[in-house]
Amino acid sequence: MAVSGEDALIARYFRPIATDPGAFHLDDDAAVLRPDGNDIVVTTDAIIEGVHFLSDDPPDTVARKALRVNLSDLAAKGAMPAGFVLTLALRNADEAWLKPFATALGEDAAQFACPLLGGDTVSTPGPLMVSVTAFGRVPPGKMIHRSGAKAGERVMVTGTIGDAALGLAILRGGKVHAAASDKATREALIGRYRVPQPRVAMAEIVRGHASAAMDVSDGLAGDLAKLCGVSGVSAVIDLVSIPLSDAAQDLVSRGIVGLETLIAGGDDYEILCTLPEDCVEAFAQAARDAGVAVSSIGTVVAGSADPKFIDGQGREIALERLSYSHF
Amino acid sequence: MAVSGEDALIARYFRPIATDPGAFHLDDDAAVLRPDGNDIVVTTDAIIEGVHFLSDDPPDTVARKALRVNLSDLAAKGAMPAGFVLTLALRNADEAWLKPFATALGEDAAQFACPLLGGDTVSTPGPLMVSVTAFGRVPPGKMIHRSGAKAGERVMVTGTIGDAALGLAILRGGKVHAAASDKATREALIGRYRVPQPRVAMAEIVRGHASAAMDVSDGLAGDLAKLCGVSGVSAVIDLVSIPLSDAAQDLVSRGIVGLETLIAGGDDYEILCTLPEDCVEAFAQAARDAGVAVSSIGTVVAGSADPKFIDGQGREIALERLSYSHF
Repeated sequence: MAVSGEDALIARYFRPIATDPGAFHLDDDAAVLRPDGNDIVVTTDAIIEGVHFLSDDPPDTVARKALRVNLSDLAAKGAMPAGFVLTLALRNADEAWLKPFATALGEDAAQFACPLLGGDTVSTPGPLMVSVTAFGRVPPGKMIHRSGAKAGERVMVTGTIGDAALGLAILRGGKVHAAASDKATREALIGRYRVPQPRVAMAEIVRGHASAAMDVSDGLAGDLAKLCGVSGVSAVIDLVSIPLSDAAQDLVSRGIVGLETLIAGGDDYEILCTLPEDCVEAFAQAARDAGVAVSSIGTVVAGSADPKFIDGQGREIALERLSYSHF
Repeated sequence: MAVSGEDALIARYFRPIATDPGAFHLDDDAAVLRPDGNDIVVTTDAIIEGVHFLSDDPPDTVARKALRVNLSDLAAKGAMPAGFVLTLALRNADEAWLKPFATALGEDAAQFACPLLGGDTVSTPGPLMVSVTAFGRVPPGKMIHRSGAKAGERVMVTGTIGDAALGLAILRGGKVHAAASDKATREALIGRYRVPQPRVAMAEIVRGHASAAMDVSDGLAGDLAKLCGVSGVSAVIDLVSIPLSDAAQDLVSRGIVGLETLIAGGDDYEILCTLPEDCVEAFAQAARDAGVAVSSIGTVVAGSADPKFIDGQGREIALERLSYSHF
């Protein structure tokens, strides 16, 4: 049988990691998701060279980022991963790039129990693009929405905020790079930019407790504004409560970056959620049991204004820019 | 609420066409596909400017092609459309392009009962890219595969073959453009290239009769070779039985293009299938009732060789190239 280059590429790099029976060994035009009584949650996120990742980012990190930004969405919706399809637009079939890309993708698919089901590989004269559509499962009607936040509820967030924005700043050189003189610190922050840690372990906990949730991908401030907008509420955020890594705290306290840069920066892939006061303790305990730090950062309030950010002296901080936007 | 440019773009152009309840007005990070006991068939196909469509193709035709190439896959798998998600990589948010794009996408979504469920809109410095992941439903275990063809079965195809390749040749100028002197003919062939006619009406008929099926997207010869390869069989195709439009027939009989060009050309989006001899009449009758022409073009035979193409004099025609490949 005459195998075209595209078919050979798929057979060599992607068939070995498409182990789910619904993938049909990537020999078919489509995959099958079997129903199990749960709703199927669908999310899609693409990453583009020069926009969401850098041309010299290692291919294994590009693969992990492409899948993980989607796993992050599923977790914030309270959904457990069920599989994904991949669209890969390449300038050429370069083994030195494809092999580590596919290997890392397979490792992440296994680690997060989110098998490769199918895809499309196309040539492009332009930048590399990796588009993933991921599927998760939730009990019927139980997906957690952006809407649902109510006045009086607590605003909480997982992990730490702003590290990925600092990692990107380091990769771009300039003052953050110069100030982050410790190599291990630089690598940790760059790692947060290149390889997000999706909070898959939080999916059921979010589903069990949160009134509204989303992942923080375009900056905490802007994403909170979106959640509040759809919920028809506002929020008051205590800036000193926003969880920072030691590295970020150090750069802020030395005046290298402002907190507002961190909360408007993108690529955190933490979960932002709201929950009733009487759920906070159980939520925090469940998160601790799952090994995930969670922080209370403010309160949902009535109104339709943008969320307010209050500093340690009780003053409202004006943000020039809430979040990253493509257009 | 501060609306970023990306959010405003989605609200203006895509929210009006995302009418399915599972799309949550595109206000959320994910969509929901409700289970109804059927398997969910998933397919994904991307189209890229300069590769799958031309820079000056009208935006409404780009939208229709992006969705329809996926609907074609679903139909060939025997699946009825259930919805789709869209990833759109744009250089800028140009209303003159986006408005007709979104309007046509909404019209096709309504026509084929395949609602927009969600998506991702990103900026790119490179060519436009439209990636669609589409969902269909089939009764459990009833998806029609590429594998399944058996020696002795009939090979059949819907519609006519090669028109889209001629349409592309006309858009590129050269001898086909010069030879297709009639404007209506040129426009009809260009239309086949730009706006495929997915055989959604054939989905249940294929599911009821075919042993194996796929859509013809990369050229009849190569796609048949793929179907045979996965099925572990070969085929003998009678070249004079391959259905041609009057325009294609005219260009072939005048020696402007060879039949081999038509059967190795891409973008037909017809359904190629195999079926047992005793199913042929019922299949053909059902197709006629659905308003779709079907043609018997050859026979499945045992073996692992590439399919043979036999001309009117009983001679085997050697094909230099079976199909389009990206790499």
